[in-house]
Amino acid sequence: MKPKHIFFDVNETLLDLNPLKISVENYLNNESNLAELWFSKMLHYSLVLNETQQFQTFDKIGLAVLKMICDAHKISFSKAEAKETLSTIKKLPAHQNVKPGLLKLKENGFQLKAISNGSQEVLETQLAYAELTSLFDEIISVEKFQTYKPNQKVYRQIQPKSIEAEECLLVAAHAWDLMGANSCGWQTAFVKREGKSWFPLAEKPTYNIKTIEELADLL
Amino acid sequence: MKPKHIFFDVNETLLDLNPLKISVENYLNNESNLAELWFSKMLHYSLVLNETQQFQTFDKIGLAVLKMICDAHKISFSKAEAKETLSTIKKLPAHQNVKPGLLKLKENGFQLKAISNGSQEVLETQLAYAELTSLFDEIISVEKFQTYKPNQKVYRQIQPKSIEAEECLLVAAHAWDLMGANSCGWQTAFVKREGKSWFPLAEKPTYNIKTIEELADLL
Repeated sequence: MKPKHIFFDVNETLLDLNPLKISVENYLNNESNLAELWFSKMLHYSLVLNETQQFQTFDKIGLAVLKMICDAHKISFSKAEAKETLSTIKKLPAHQNVKPGLLKLKENGFQLKAISNGSQEVLETQLAYAELTSLFDEIISVEKFQTYKPNQKVYRQIQPKSIEAEECLLVAAHAWDLMGANSCGWQTAFVKREGKSWFPLAEKPTYNIKTIEELADLL
Repeated sequence: MKPKHIFFDVNETLLDLNPLKISVENYLNNESNLAELWFSKMLHYSLVLNETQQFQTFDKIGLAVLKMICDAHKISFSKAEAKETLSTIKKLPAHQNVKPGLLKLKENGFQLKAISNGSQEVLETQLAYAELTSLFDEIISVEKFQTYKPNQKVYRQIQPKSIEAEECLLVAAHAWDLMGANSCGWQTAFVKREGKSWFPLAEKPTYNIKTIEELADLL
């Protein structure tokens, strides 16, 4: 079935996280793989907050996890410098081919929406910086629901009442996000970004793609 | 208030995970910090399964995440060798001072229980190898509840009906585990193991300790 509403995850899926990874790695004394560890721990703790019925913005979690890694690895931590480091997230370029891909999908009549674990303010700043704002019909942060993806509440709340679950498609570069959407009956598209790989225990995605334009051609 | 039942997390809290970290790091071409990344991603995906109402044993998640990291880092993966690598988890020594600490607590009349995200079979094998089995009144895997810590269901199910939440104490080397117990009204004790640090956004633990014997002296 052809989807009607296409939801896009933002970080790594549409935007190139490399500048942020470089900033974080620099901050962490250029120790290999610590930027990836930081991202993984941030995701883990966002779900720990879900499980314990709490909420903090993604920025705060990112900063807290950075301090945690500094403490564990005996790297000195300064809150002001750490904040400055993490603010790189607001200035990420779109991956090549994102803009033409989204344009093609929009011209073909799909409703396009952005859905991110980042705060509403950061999300809007990011899309404006990457010059993608005007392509979206809606820009949604999970902040509104005080719970992080892949909690099923998020997908259920953003699914328009007028359409069926299988008419929604989530596009993401992370298996965990697509697992949430899939568990709610949505279609899924995995964008294979560099350094990203599939979680072998998850159900296969509906579409496996390398670029957003590839998706536009498939639909 | 003095707790009556003391629950102990097992991996890193009682047992020294270093042999497993070394095995995993060797398997991952000795790339720095990849063992820690593996552990973090395993924890993240255990909660992704919670969020999407699924369950797989911790062994399977560990293996799947190892493959995921191999794929992303272009390291060759063999299922048999990976399984062999991860089986090191069954042969971990207790941290120094664990046995005398547990003995003292037992002699002082506390009920001692082990609670782990690992499967029942692995957990029992681990405690037998570390010669701790006889010290516990109960050895519980979350497998029984088909949901991972820190989901609140776990703590609520293992809390004996005869006692109040605040009469339970969880001892763990991980802030995320203690956050789950704390959100259920339990007391908490953070064991500061090497390379572990506190999550700054979490409520402070009831006890901050370095060894289990220190806890026995405090209670």
